[in-house]
Amino acid sequence: MSIKTQLKQKIDLKTKPLGALGLLEDVALQIGLIQNTLTPELKNPALLVFAADHGLTAEGISPFPKDVTWQMVMNFVAGGAAINVFCRQNGINLQVVDAGVDFDFPSGVPVVDAKVARGTRNMRLEPAMTADECAAAIQKGRELVRAEVAKGCNIIGFGEMGIGNTSASSLLMHRFLGISVEECTGSGTGMFGDQLSHKVKILKEVAEKYDPKTPAETLATFGGLEIAMMVGAMLEAAEQHMILLVDGFIATAAALTAIEMNAEVRKNCVFCHSSNERGHKLMLEKMEAKSMLQLDLRLGEGTGAALALPLVKAAVNFLNEMASFEDAGVSNKE
Amino acid sequence: MSIKTQLKQKIDLKTKPLGALGLLEDVALQIGLIQNTLTPELKNPALLVFAADHGLTAEGISPFPKDVTWQMVMNFVAGGAAINVFCRQNGINLQVVDAGVDFDFPSGVPVVDAKVARGTRNMRLEPAMTADECAAAIQKGRELVRAEVAKGCNIIGFGEMGIGNTSASSLLMHRFLGISVEECTGSGTGMFGDQLSHKVKILKEVAEKYDPKTPAETLATFGGLEIAMMVGAMLEAAEQHMILLVDGFIATAAALTAIEMNAEVRKNCVFCHSSNERGHKLMLEKMEAKSMLQLDLRLGEGTGAALALPLVKAAVNFLNEMASFEDAGVSNKE
Repeated sequence: MSIKTQLKQKIDLKTKPLGALGLLEDVALQIGLIQNTLTPELKNPALLVFAADHGLTAEGISPFPKDVTWQMVMNFVAGGAAINVFCRQNGINLQVVDAGVDFDFPSGVPVVDAKVARGTRNMRLEPAMTADECAAAIQKGRELVRAEVAKGCNIIGFGEMGIGNTSASSLLMHRFLGISVEECTGSGTGMFGDQLSHKVKILKEVAEKYDPKTPAETLATFGGLEIAMMVGAMLEAAEQHMILLVDGFIATAAALTAIEMNAEVRKNCVFCHSSNERGHKLMLEKMEAKSMLQLDLRLGEGTGAALALPLVKAAVNFLNEMASFEDAGVSNKE
Repeated sequence: MSIKTQLKQKIDLKTKPLGALGLLEDVALQIGLIQNTLTPELKNPALLVFAADHGLTAEGISPFPKDVTWQMVMNFVAGGAAINVFCRQNGINLQVVDAGVDFDFPSGVPVVDAKVARGTRNMRLEPAMTADECAAAIQKGRELVRAEVAKGCNIIGFGEMGIGNTSASSLLMHRFLGISVEECTGSGTGMFGDQLSHKVKILKEVAEKYDPKTPAETLATFGGLEIAMMVGAMLEAAEQHMILLVDGFIATAAALTAIEMNAEVRKNCVFCHSSNERGHKLMLEKMEAKSMLQLDLRLGEGTGAALALPLVKAAVNFLNEMASFEDAGVSNKE
């Protein structure tokens, strides 16, 4: 009997009506398959938050000034951001990674220095990254995940901070899924009405300017350094048989990119939150993914991933700890 | 400045775009208002699972035999049910209450003995409870909550076990909201096709048989002993300024009943899970309630409430622990 059949049987014989734990049953099955066992375990959960700047912010595509990227990184290391609160609460080891912030962090500040460049180029004028920069970011992402594996981590979440990065994500989505720029573009941290029309106009112009052929070239053209590093981290994590906690719109765009590069990555992705960002639900649909949470979050940072961890734990725990009908002496359906 | 305005201001000045924590912001505001403070606390979370039998099971309205009620209670006290797993995981003090199970539990079994009767009457023939039985169940529910308050609990979840209790809940919903029996009736633990048509037919017959006038009379006619005890518990918990974690379809029907008796109860209800049970989404809509989770659970027992607790904690924690823009030196919108 295959491990999949055995897992399904184990789930079905628990003391509950068939399928009554809904999405938790799907996640339990998925994790059993990832770990190839009937008794999976979650070890040393970690979350990497990748931060970087975006040259396209020069075009007024975000209501927040670019400086908010480094200021929020300082907020992360001081422990005052939402992601800090949720990681503390749920026992997640949080690491903040400078993938490409346009700022020199003071020495002694606990930010992982993985800076590839001081932000991307303005892709209205030239591709966001050179092929070398993009490859370096991917490589660094892989290394960071290997370091987590060495610490015994087998479940890892991904978050980001980068003013302008919903624009990069919308363009990746547009390119990989063939959905119009309008449908892929949402309000980000707060662009409405005329501001949103302006954002769409700029993104359409950028989308039409280039015709990249490979996933790597597409990522270099439209992506961000934090997105590219996250893509590398996801590729490595999947190869290492880890569970990937995929956060919101930007992390999902990174997952989409990683899956374009290696379709096997999809099997390891637990999609944590379906945001109100316009393209996000559409992207999840295309990936046939149901998300664990729908809390109307639109913050990023990995907050959806951190908040979903207790539900992922619940999926593993019911599989390991619940009694079967036989164990408990409970009658099954008549 | 009112506490509501102060809470809103505190939430809005946290280092995040306005409204970016979505539903968690609503819950943080609600809990601040319940506790009348800018720094709410969750203390000694408890969950009461009320179990009882239903005379209407004689009419074949559930695919599980009635004995499953007592068998599942034994499973709860042995620690093998889903609710045990989730309460253990999330640090919730679980109590199992015999509100009216048709079984004599062996002495020494840790079930709270609050048995009002050995199940309800068959409401196809006569009202489910007498007025006295219903009042006794409500009273007992109040007492159990007062005991939790004495232990320092200020947040309490409600679950249930009772083969046949989706039928009672559908009838309460039908009666209080004026929605057709068909729309209020779902598959419960697994009634499909002809079985579901049979369930609807029986429930329509029962609905047409009676014309109760007051909420208490309606509850006695169509309810269950576990539902009535839950109603009493909810009334008391709201009067004690506690946070009420309302689970799925049956608990929501109990909340609806409690709100019919005292509209103030609504303010203290955090709706935890929106199930696929047909009437549940409709009932939440009518109560203008958004639920924390949508996991396709259809198990009851309080599982949705237990699983939602970490999110409720997250709401309180971000309110207490996140930095403001000013604290963190982060620029707000341009």
